[in-house]
Amino acid sequence: MTAYTATVTVRLKRGVLDPEAETTQQALERLGFELEDLRSADRFEVDVDAADADDAEARATEMAERLLANPTIHDYDVEVAEA
Amino acid sequence: MTAYTATVTVRLKRGVLDPEAETTQQALERLGFELEDLRSADRFEVDVDAADADDAEARATEMAERLLANPTIHDYDVEVAEA
Repeated sequence: MTAYTATVTVRLKRGVLDPEAETTQQALERLGFELEDLRSADRFEVDVDAADADDAEARATEMAERLLANPTIHDYDVEVAEA
Repeated sequence: MTAYTATVTVRLKRGVLDPEAETTQQALERLGFELEDLRSADRFEVDVDAADADDAEARATEMAERLLANPTIHDYDVEVAEA
């Protein structure tokens, strides 16, 4: 078994309103920053012991499907690296 | 001016308690997943028009310093890519 870190990034699907990101963007603009758009996402770094990188990715994907992301409103992607 | 996307990842410093991540880890374990550790982070994708990548990175770094991260408890990193 090898130690891997799977990074799961969960973001809202296009078209889903994100009031927190909108508020953050407005606050930055009030501070004088110029920006075109701001999107927020959640990032989970999961340390797993797995037989290989494919196994680690499969398990992290299942975690995303079952708990970390809500498929109705979220997209997610999974990246795996040796820890 | 070129369109860039600056990705600012904000994570808690080592040693700062993260009850949300702990709860998420416990929920995954209750679902039967085996994991060694789980850390959560916030990720902001900021679209900016900038003269070059260095300019975009400098502005995103200043946004992190002034608003997106709290230097007492957070570390952050900034990555810039052409949009």
